[in-house]
Amino acid sequence: MEPPVLPPWEQFRAARPAEKARWLRTPTGRPYHVLFAQQFDRPFLDRLCETATRTRRIAKTKGGRMFLQSLLPDQRAMLYFAQPSTRTFLSFYTACQIVGLRPAEVRDTHTSSEFKGESPEDSVRTFSSYVDLIIMRHPEQGFAERIAWLLSTTERSVPVINAGSGKDEHPTQALLDVYTLQRSFARRGGIEGKTVVFVGDLLRGRTVRSLAQVLVLYPGVRLIFCAPAPLQIADDILEVLRTAGVPHETTEDFEYAVAAADAVYMTRLQDEWDVAGESRQIPTERFRFEERHLQLLRPDGIVMHPLPRRHEIAVEVDRDPRAMYWRQVRNGMWIRVALILTMFGREGEIHQYYEELVR
Amino acid sequence: MEPPVLPPWEQFRAARPAEKARWLRTPTGRPYHVLFAQQFDRPFLDRLCETATRTRRIAKTKGGRMFLQSLLPDQRAMLYFAQPSTRTFLSFYTACQIVGLRPAEVRDTHTSSEFKGESPEDSVRTFSSYVDLIIMRHPEQGFAERIAWLLSTTERSVPVINAGSGKDEHPTQALLDVYTLQRSFARRGGIEGKTVVFVGDLLRGRTVRSLAQVLVLYPGVRLIFCAPAPLQIADDILEVLRTAGVPHETTEDFEYAVAAADAVYMTRLQDEWDVAGESRQIPTERFRFEERHLQLLRPDGIVMHPLPRRHEIAVEVDRDPRAMYWRQVRNGMWIRVALILTMFGREGEIHQYYEELVR
Amino acid sequence: MEPPVLPPWEQFRAARPAEKARWLRTPTGRPYHVLFAQQFDRPFLDRLCETATRTRRIAKTKGGRMFLQSLLPDQRAMLYFAQPSTRTFLSFYTACQIVGLRPAEVRDTHTSSEFKGESPEDSVRTFSSYVDLIIMRHPEQGFAERIAWLLSTTERSVPVINAGSGKDEHPTQALLDVYTLQRSFARRGGIEGKTVVFVGDLLRGRTVRSLAQVLVLYPGVRLIFCAPAPLQIADDILEVLRTAGVPHETTEDFEYAVAAADAVYMTRLQDEWDVAGESRQIPTERFRFEERHLQLLRPDGIVMHPLPRRHEIAVEVDRDPRAMYWRQVRNGMWIRVALILTMFGREGEIHQYYEELVR
Repeated sequence: MEPPVLPPWEQFRAARPAEKARWLRTPTGRPYHVLFAQQFDRPFLDRLCETATRTRRIAKTKGGRMFLQSLLPDQRAMLYFAQPSTRTFLSFYTACQIVGLRPAEVRDTHTSSEFKGESPEDSVRTFSSYVDLIIMRHPEQGFAERIAWLLSTTERSVPVINAGSGKDEHPTQALLDVYTLQRSFARRGGIEGKTVVFVGDLLRGRTVRSLAQVLVLYPGVRLIFCAPAPLQIADDILEVLRTAGVPHETTEDFEYAVAAADAVYMTRLQDEWDVAGESRQIPTERFRFEERHLQLLRPDGIVMHPLPRRHEIAVEVDRDPRAMYWRQVRNGMWIRVALILTMFGREGEIHQYYEELVR
Repeated sequence: MEPPVLPPWEQFRAARPAEKARWLRTPTGRPYHVLFAQQFDRPFLDRLCETATRTRRIAKTKGGRMFLQSLLPDQRAMLYFAQPSTRTFLSFYTACQIVGLRPAEVRDTHTSSEFKGESPEDSVRTFSSYVDLIIMRHPEQGFAERIAWLLSTTERSVPVINAGSGKDEHPTQALLDVYTLQRSFARRGGIEGKTVVFVGDLLRGRTVRSLAQVLVLYPGVRLIFCAPAPLQIADDILEVLRTAGVPHETTEDFEYAVAAADAVYMTRLQDEWDVAGESRQIPTERFRFEERHLQLLRPDGIVMHPLPRRHEIAVEVDRDPRAMYWRQVRNGMWIRVALILTMFGREGEIHQYYEELVR
Repeated sequence: MEPPVLPPWEQFRAARPAEKARWLRTPTGRPYHVLFAQQFDRPFLDRLCETATRTRRIAKTKGGRMFLQSLLPDQRAMLYFAQPSTRTFLSFYTACQIVGLRPAEVRDTHTSSEFKGESPEDSVRTFSSYVDLIIMRHPEQGFAERIAWLLSTTERSVPVINAGSGKDEHPTQALLDVYTLQRSFARRGGIEGKTVVFVGDLLRGRTVRSLAQVLVLYPGVRLIFCAPAPLQIADDILEVLRTAGVPHETTEDFEYAVAAADAVYMTRLQDEWDVAGESRQIPTERFRFEERHLQLLRPDGIVMHPLPRRHEIAVEVDRDPRAMYWRQVRNGMWIRVALILTMFGREGEIHQYYEELVR
């Protein structure tokens, strides 16, 4: 992979998403770093979903699974998880194993040299020496971006996938949500024209913020934000939707929203961001998906959740075929497989194998 | 692997071992889940020991080792260790590597989402999405059984191996103990008719409880339980032995027991279960295997210990060829290899390879 | 690998380095255990550096990388890191992956059975049962040596690489430093005749102590120790140099030392060994490599650092081609690859592959 040439840090950091996205691409147009959800355009998303779907079809036979492992066995990835997240970690770890990529992990950065006074930049640059890809989760907003930029200035640049940084960006979560919507509505003409309802802590849930902005790329989509007033979606997102001409509304009427939805995207209270437990004062009981709400939902509608859940969705709902959250987990694994293959320029082999041996 | 259909939870949980064992088998008779020691019958144990012995013979050449790795390279296992146990973890991890199975680990569940209010069931179900086998250690009694049952009710069932849950079950420890006895007495007609002496904290050591119940399957076995009265074996086990007609006795006379033994099974004080350090008041000095006891032991007898040891066996005993506890460790690795291959229906290939290339 | 026969512990421990080195070799002359830096002679070091250089050349193609992975896929290594060190851990972990060796890790020994009262010797012996190589880091001086000796007395000996024990030994760090010097001066006649300047906490930095003693093997090398008096190199090292006839001096004049150097080896303050923060009282500002010092350094000189750094080297220096510390990291990975291949007797295949396919 030939790394892209990035502009000076201040210029890079201050650039608009579309401009950054251009810089992050390799000379042949592939994403070199994957840092934020809005860096992808529609043709890329369509192609990526198709690659994911074909990859999982290929994986249904042992021959196919061995073929997938033969794609990147000579490459190594570091999973640098400075913030605990077993599920995202395992999803990426498994994705690496599926394509043969050798994973190494740095989960607890207290065991690194950071405590000896080393800068985080030096730590990550050292670790990057051993690998061909960095998958990074960090509590600090913008950290993945800074590391990606920094490595690009060194003799040995390494691509970075942002696996969640701070409150803001978690691009592969948005990819798996889009993939879940695309698969669920494949027989209904795709995501275009569908109504997506977001429910819960919309103010602080980064998955909702990311996905809403990506859905702008799908004509005719309508968004409903259903939350108690103190947790309602922030104005910056509404402004993005207004500018893009995406129809949307906010409401506190959960029953109305479920009945209007093609997809109901439930989220949990993000009270880890509370200063003094203030959000527990907010009444959220009316925003729970109980078994009885299944009757309000369209027969071909779906219920999504990024997980983990608390009580936002009753366990009884799990048995309904429209409950899509467990399948979302598997979708996340496959879209990450597709993303890694695409970054390493191997998705062409997926399509060739599929044409020859699967279809 | 086609998963078995399990009855409702209350019915499953309340069933007798023999009934549960039947439910846990696949339609072709293999164990789908491995949850407790008494789930195995004699033909299964004999076959499993033979598979283990042939596998380690195959592993003596590089060609054989590469053959073993070719058996399950397209499968993935999760080692979910909610309770620390480096030795059991490494034994299973290595067993996976030997047959090519790709392992992923969840060792510290504090880095999982459990702290965000997710139920343990949701956590494990999420993690199960990424793998084809779960190897699980958990401090809570019955947890592995509950998860196995739960996964069987989902669209994507995954087999579960219980690697130790609570005070009660640790079935692969019993398997390795049986395998060690079988190997040690192979030239003396097998386990049948042998006298096995258990020494130490018999009240709380789950390995003793499990092994004693499995030895019921071997005709003519005689059991001696040698412990200070407050740590003597519990009545429920004695009742099992009485019902099965297994000759047994309890004693506080260590010298007598050693002299009577074909196998002396030493165990450590399980004071982690103490409420207030009460067991440290119990005099256990008379129940230590010192170098001088080697003279009391039959020339073809053996000394076993599940490890870790404290002072129950003097280090000087290690050099005696009858000290079997270090070889028990290796036996544990190989019996786990055999178990995994059997669960995945690949043990036939072991026997075929052995017939063609080793014998 | 046929293990060497070691003498009784007291005799082994008290022996001189040259004698120990002889004992640690296999019958065919390869190092069986790698425990301390002075165990290597010049022909071994020269050959090892050559193996490392050829291995990295081979790794430039996918075919070469797959060849390297085919060398040890049937072997397993345990990385036993009782002391945290992410960088050394990752370097060895990656080296294992490069040659196909399956790694397993024990990073946090609190999750082992040590807390149940088991001796560390029993712990490591248990873990050794599962693997073919132990790579060990431990805070206790001499621990790796004791374990290597202990395992040699058992039925199943396993080679040990010391990856850092206590204040004293970290032999693979010395190997990577020698390799870096050798590569950097390859076109200037090698290490012979060069002036190496050590700067910083020379009293407590084990890398400096180790490297200084290894450089004795290179005729004409001159050493300058540049440090504030309380942190100056210890007398035992100076005595070694005097005995070997190696020209050396001590100084507090950093500018003088940089100007005289072929290689400037910077180190950080080792204040983790402080009893009461006493070393923070020592003025170390004058011993920092700032951007302006680049003008004092020879055009073909180099700046080294074992990392992690704090403020001993200004970040601006990183961009200078003479800054060698980031490349040191990569050199460390490759010299460890070469060392493992040599221990397992596979370096001949490297040279054969290189002769046939690379050169």
